[in-house]
Amino acid sequence: MTNYSIGVDLGGTNLRIAAIDQQGNLLEKMTLGAESALGRDRVVTDMCEAIRHVISKCRDAGALQGIGIGVPGIIDLHTGVVRKSPNRPDWVDYPVRAAIERRLGTRVILENDSNLAALGEKWLGAARGVDDMAIVTLGTGVGGGLVLGGRIWHGMTGMAGEFGHTTVEPEGALCRCGNRGCLEAYASATAVLRMAREAVASGASPDLARATRANAEFSAQDVYSLAIQGDEDARGIFRRVGRALGIVLSGMVNALNLPMYVIGGGVSGAWDAFSPSIFEELRQRSMVYAATDSEPSEGVGASAHGEPARTTRTVITRAVLGSDAGLYGAARLPSLNGS
Amino acid sequence: MTNYSIGVDLGGTNLRIAAIDQQGNLLEKMTLGAESALGRDRVVTDMCEAIRHVISKCRDAGALQGIGIGVPGIIDLHTGVVRKSPNRPDWVDYPVRAAIERRLGTRVILENDSNLAALGEKWLGAARGVDDMAIVTLGTGVGGGLVLGGRIWHGMTGMAGEFGHTTVEPEGALCRCGNRGCLEAYASATAVLRMAREAVASGASPDLARATRANAEFSAQDVYSLAIQGDEDARGIFRRVGRALGIVLSGMVNALNLPMYVIGGGVSGAWDAFSPSIFEELRQRSMVYAATDSEPSEGVGASAHGEPARTTRTVITRAVLGSDAGLYGAARLPSLNGS
Repeated sequence: MTNYSIGVDLGGTNLRIAAIDQQGNLLEKMTLGAESALGRDRVVTDMCEAIRHVISKCRDAGALQGIGIGVPGIIDLHTGVVRKSPNRPDWVDYPVRAAIERRLGTRVILENDSNLAALGEKWLGAARGVDDMAIVTLGTGVGGGLVLGGRIWHGMTGMAGEFGHTTVEPEGALCRCGNRGCLEAYASATAVLRMAREAVASGASPDLARATRANAEFSAQDVYSLAIQGDEDARGIFRRVGRALGIVLSGMVNALNLPMYVIGGGVSGAWDAFSPSIFEELRQRSMVYAATDSEPSEGVGASAHGEPARTTRTVITRAVLGSDAGLYGAARLPSLNGS
Repeated sequence: MTNYSIGVDLGGTNLRIAAIDQQGNLLEKMTLGAESALGRDRVVTDMCEAIRHVISKCRDAGALQGIGIGVPGIIDLHTGVVRKSPNRPDWVDYPVRAAIERRLGTRVILENDSNLAALGEKWLGAARGVDDMAIVTLGTGVGGGLVLGGRIWHGMTGMAGEFGHTTVEPEGALCRCGNRGCLEAYASATAVLRMAREAVASGASPDLARATRANAEFSAQDVYSLAIQGDEDARGIFRRVGRALGIVLSGMVNALNLPMYVIGGGVSGAWDAFSPSIFEELRQRSMVYAATDSEPSEGVGASAHGEPARTTRTVITRAVLGSDAGLYGAARLPSLNGS
């Protein structure tokens, strides 16, 4: 028998709750609808009920170590207040930690959802054993998380890692944050769908038009299906995704010189369609990438001062835990915080 | 009598050498021409001769603690090799540390010049006592340095902090690094001069045209003089400088959430002319800036969990050490490295 934690991932449309043991084994999992239209009180009440339900099912699984909750948006982690959540308009200056703790009667650990995706990929995914890494998560919105020296880099108020709102085109597409030309406006599922609709409206994309008419729930996933079938318009949309990501990653590589950058979230499933454009931009735009973009040849890694061999290659790779990364990261929080 | 260090700052056109004691007092200073046209062997030979000269003048000043040297460009700090230096075309894969140590017969500590500007401002300048900060240096080129947890953040191969080559306009002005639309192509002294020449060539800027004709050594400083005299074209150039800086700083604030960002280098003397545009962009483009852009009102800084009061304001400010920041930072290196 081992101890376990509860991890919660509040996404743009779904709420997922899991009990995960210290080795990373999934014991229980629940998924609820959590559309922002439900309003914050209802979402939090449903979440707390589901957490209690999952705990009750784990009665024989060992001791509950703690509850980690991933919340999207700009959160002040010291006060537990969500300042702004681009995809949840009523989560403005919302003291969400107090709202949860009041309902559950116990303390919980909050974290930005994308920071948890970074933590999950570091614990069990693409970045196992990598102490310095960043993740960019492509979902309904675009988030990000930064791990430096093995720990989440929170910054001054816990708001670091907002790579989704880096400007890609100063006068570009309108983003839900109110600004123009953010990465999120080119690389989120929402953006993929918008670009598909724009292509249909232009009248120049007959296959995309046919596909949207045939499917009332046409999604970014369907644009990807068309792309892998060879539809040039759909492929062009993912080239735009990759280009925007490549521009932002170039800046990150130049600024931080990390050994690994992971692309996660649902849209990362379209990796094959957008990743070539990422590498094209990186080679063009990042002098640091160019200087670190090859396996070290014999001797190059060796130091004049006799330090041990080092990693000297910049790796850009897709996440391996898919949309579960944040859930695993959330469950990892209590053992890191020693709560 | 106190110990002292030698600091060296190799800029785009000048080479400065100083002896500085542990309290930050300047004991000796030399400035040499070091135009890239001289070639790397000549520059390094002159540097070593001058270092020996300065040391000989400090014979009575105490013990020499070490020699710190700031070098521009992409440096592998482990091997002491400059991979690429945008403003020195013959510094490609140049083992500069070995070249210096062979001439001096003693070990030296290399560092990227902009990282040293960060260290200098942290030691004696705008960021005294601030453990997490970034600097963007506006000189012949645009450099940057990052201090996290009180130490220079080097990244994997010592190349972190290259903010000057962050893309601002994906299809924008050609940068000397070969890419388009880099910050350096809008915010360096070189860029200010280029924009002034473009304005003159367009025929729409009579005052700028007159000023360039009247002065064979017309410089970015002269553009600034016109701007403070109210010339609308010159003012427009500095608005473009500020806009580009604001776009890049917005991304940095969103990504890193640091308490302080310092703008240094020669062009930072034009702070009054470009800084309003920085803040305009930050308010528009950075949700993290918007959430941290006011003095905390009573109680807001307090935590539900009883932590002490915290800094919660993002400060963007100009450097106070001017072009000497890197020189002081270089002299600070030996005491940090315990060499």
